[in-house]
Amino acid sequence: MYLKMHLLKPEIEELLKNKDTEEIKELLETFEPVEVTELLRSMSLSQKLSIFSILDLDFSARVFEEFEADEQMEIIEGINKIRKAELLDELHPDDRVDFFQDIPQDLKEQLLSIMEKKEARETRELMVYPEETAGGLMTTEFIKVRRNLTGKQVIDIIRKQAEDVETISDIYVVDENDILVGVVTLKDLILANMRRKVKNIMLPRPVSVPITLDQEKVAQEVAKYDINTVPVVDDRGRLKGIITVDDIIDVIKEETAEDMLKFGAAGEHSMHYLKLNPFYLARSRVIWLSVLAFVGIISGFIISKNSFILSQVIVLAAFIPLLNGSAGNAGTQAVAVMIQALALGEVRFKDFWKSVRKEFLTGIILGIVLGLLGLLRALFFQKSSLLGITVGLTLIINTALATSLGAVLPLIVKRMNFDPAVISGPLITSIMDVTSLLIYFTLAKLIIL
Amino acid sequence: MYLKMHLLKPEIEELLKNKDTEEIKELLETFEPVEVTELLRSMSLSQKLSIFSILDLDFSARVFEEFEADEQMEIIEGINKIRKAELLDELHPDDRVDFFQDIPQDLKEQLLSIMEKKEARETRELMVYPEETAGGLMTTEFIKVRRNLTGKQVIDIIRKQAEDVETISDIYVVDENDILVGVVTLKDLILANMRRKVKNIMLPRPVSVPITLDQEKVAQEVAKYDINTVPVVDDRGRLKGIITVDDIIDVIKEETAEDMLKFGAAGEHSMHYLKLNPFYLARSRVIWLSVLAFVGIISGFIISKNSFILSQVIVLAAFIPLLNGSAGNAGTQAVAVMIQALALGEVRFKDFWKSVRKEFLTGIILGIVLGLLGLLRALFFQKSSLLGITVGLTLIINTALATSLGAVLPLIVKRMNFDPAVISGPLITSIMDVTSLLIYFTLAKLIIL
Repeated sequence: MYLKMHLLKPEIEELLKNKDTEEIKELLETFEPVEVTELLRSMSLSQKLSIFSILDLDFSARVFEEFEADEQMEIIEGINKIRKAELLDELHPDDRVDFFQDIPQDLKEQLLSIMEKKEARETRELMVYPEETAGGLMTTEFIKVRRNLTGKQVIDIIRKQAEDVETISDIYVVDENDILVGVVTLKDLILANMRRKVKNIMLPRPVSVPITLDQEKVAQEVAKYDINTVPVVDDRGRLKGIITVDDIIDVIKEETAEDMLKFGAAGEHSMHYLKLNPFYLARSRVIWLSVLAFVGIISGFIISKNSFILSQVIVLAAFIPLLNGSAGNAGTQAVAVMIQALALGEVRFKDFWKSVRKEFLTGIILGIVLGLLGLLRALFFQKSSLLGITVGLTLIINTALATSLGAVLPLIVKRMNFDPAVISGPLITSIMDVTSLLIYFTLAKLIIL
Repeated sequence: MYLKMHLLKPEIEELLKNKDTEEIKELLETFEPVEVTELLRSMSLSQKLSIFSILDLDFSARVFEEFEADEQMEIIEGINKIRKAELLDELHPDDRVDFFQDIPQDLKEQLLSIMEKKEARETRELMVYPEETAGGLMTTEFIKVRRNLTGKQVIDIIRKQAEDVETISDIYVVDENDILVGVVTLKDLILANMRRKVKNIMLPRPVSVPITLDQEKVAQEVAKYDINTVPVVDDRGRLKGIITVDDIIDVIKEETAEDMLKFGAAGEHSMHYLKLNPFYLARSRVIWLSVLAFVGIISGFIISKNSFILSQVIVLAAFIPLLNGSAGNAGTQAVAVMIQALALGEVRFKDFWKSVRKEFLTGIILGIVLGLLGLLRALFFQKSSLLGITVGLTLIINTALATSLGAVLPLIVKRMNFDPAVISGPLITSIMDVTSLLIYFTLAKLIIL
């Protein structure tokens, strides 16, 4: 699809030159909005703006929604005032709020002042909710009915309102206090006798999420229940909005991207990678690097403290990369497995001892394999069985310690309600550097000296 | 919800004892299937089986679908033959195939032989497609109509077929050769004049995926287009099935879990963590650990080779953890960022030089910060400016090299059509151990000796 759109570019440019607006509109509007967004990305700003003035308002709003915040700014600044207000009014409330969240305060006020009163008020209301909560994700355009209506009456309401809402696949039922009492899927509605009342068709006690719930938890709920929309309620159970599954997919991708960056100790950034400059990138990584460097300096002190034995048996130094590396790697593996098991809900804090025992045993097995490898290396190249035993034992102890710690740390962090992915590979690697050197030199003194 | 179900357990057990089947059925069927699955997980096998014999066939199939493969086996083996056949027939085709993919060949044949002919044939057909492709994900139960039907006629078809299909939110339109020509959303259908023909309501050229497409790419398409179902076509464009968004969410979670495990060099496992024994866990990790241990041994050789300078200036050893650690960490950060940028589609191979330049400059900035830290450490504790300069320079060169390599490797691997996440944190860490030791000792010889 992407390719096809790209091939269209010369044709569109030609049509723009000839001001053949009808042709452009007809051509572009047969595509999906996101495809048109991609095409526009490859064009100049003035071309973008011309096309925005040509497209139907509804379609241009969908195209606009697919752009990133900074691209949206460019367009909003470029188009004329009337069109600007119309475009903003036409956006889906949740996408509109996303745009407003990212712009300067004075521009925000200025834009709100030219919008329709209803849309402006709605936007102000939605902006109250933090971006990464259910309130920040929800849209207020959905179909809501009373339970005493008949199927026929509901269908009429849907016909009237469908143009203004994002989805009609689920219809929510509320009581006289606006409290959510049920949900009817469009499928159930169509299958039911049209004279039956909604309260007899609806599923009572539908899954819902509180308006303050973190977006990651919202995504977990939606994934668990295989639903296409989830209703959002306030602390009194009143229906405030709904979240659609396409926004949930974005959340899941965002959250897992964040997890990977955290696990790589690479900081966070919510913007497009190619738009970030090296100073920004460096800033997001330097703190972790410096913290880890300090841990590296501690490892250095341990080596300094042991410089006597090291100068006596200089070959001890040759095993440091193998020992440190193996412990760090085994720890990283265990952390990665544990973070994933936690993310997939396979492991909870109550499985603490089960997980630790499992990882400890895994570490023992891995340690024996690595220990044999280290022993052979020492016997073969250094012809020293004492050194071999030291290295082998260190590897067994280290690896079991690393995998156990790799299980423990994410569980504890999760228990403290932090994201387990903050226990990054580099962090466990640096911690294991310190402990493996301590164990190594202690054993060396006992066995070799 | 989870909590509420748990509280229900004593009540259900009491009802089971009293054989109050009607009550159990009524109580459980007001919950979501996945909640009943969770409740059953906490019960004994015989309790599970009793409940399975009580629930409506349709509802019990939905509950069954939520279990893991090994739990499903237990249930299938426990229930009687007639009920077994009915249950299998009632499963959604895609879930049924998932179950069949995981069981021994002889059991597969035995179960297929007791099923209805239509369902058995369908299952055989679907099993042909690899699990992780569009064909492996799709269901064959969906609504398909000809383009000359009227809206009214389509609604009648939906009413007739809705019970047997997973979703009716999108209705697919085919020509006389079964070639996909359009899609009508239920929303558009309801809004349209009932006498209009489908071909005039439908969106022509809908997004579709080839039956052989990898599930990760399928998920990308669905996420890009914000659609709830995607049609699957064969190489001639004939409509073979559809994939629903709930399966896509599972794919996204699965794929990102895999990525995290790969990035942690922790191997792969598709089963529930708590069900894996330490030998299995060790097996899935030992290969990477051994490969990395060999790289660690290479680093050891570099140290051995430089044992002369090391014995002269024993304090050089004290900086090895800082230097190796920093290079590895900077590399890991860059790899994590790049894997994510690739996963989110922000970076493509054509951005190779742009990315490398960006990471190189980032590495220089980070290297200067770390280099100053190393220099100060050497000046302060060792009072040696030559050592300080050696350490500082090594850190700058190493860090820039690490971030550049961290950008290059995932891009190249991706270009070769492998998963960029195979460039794990531990791998780049081990590679950087080797290079940073080489640079360190080379500079040390030049500057200090």
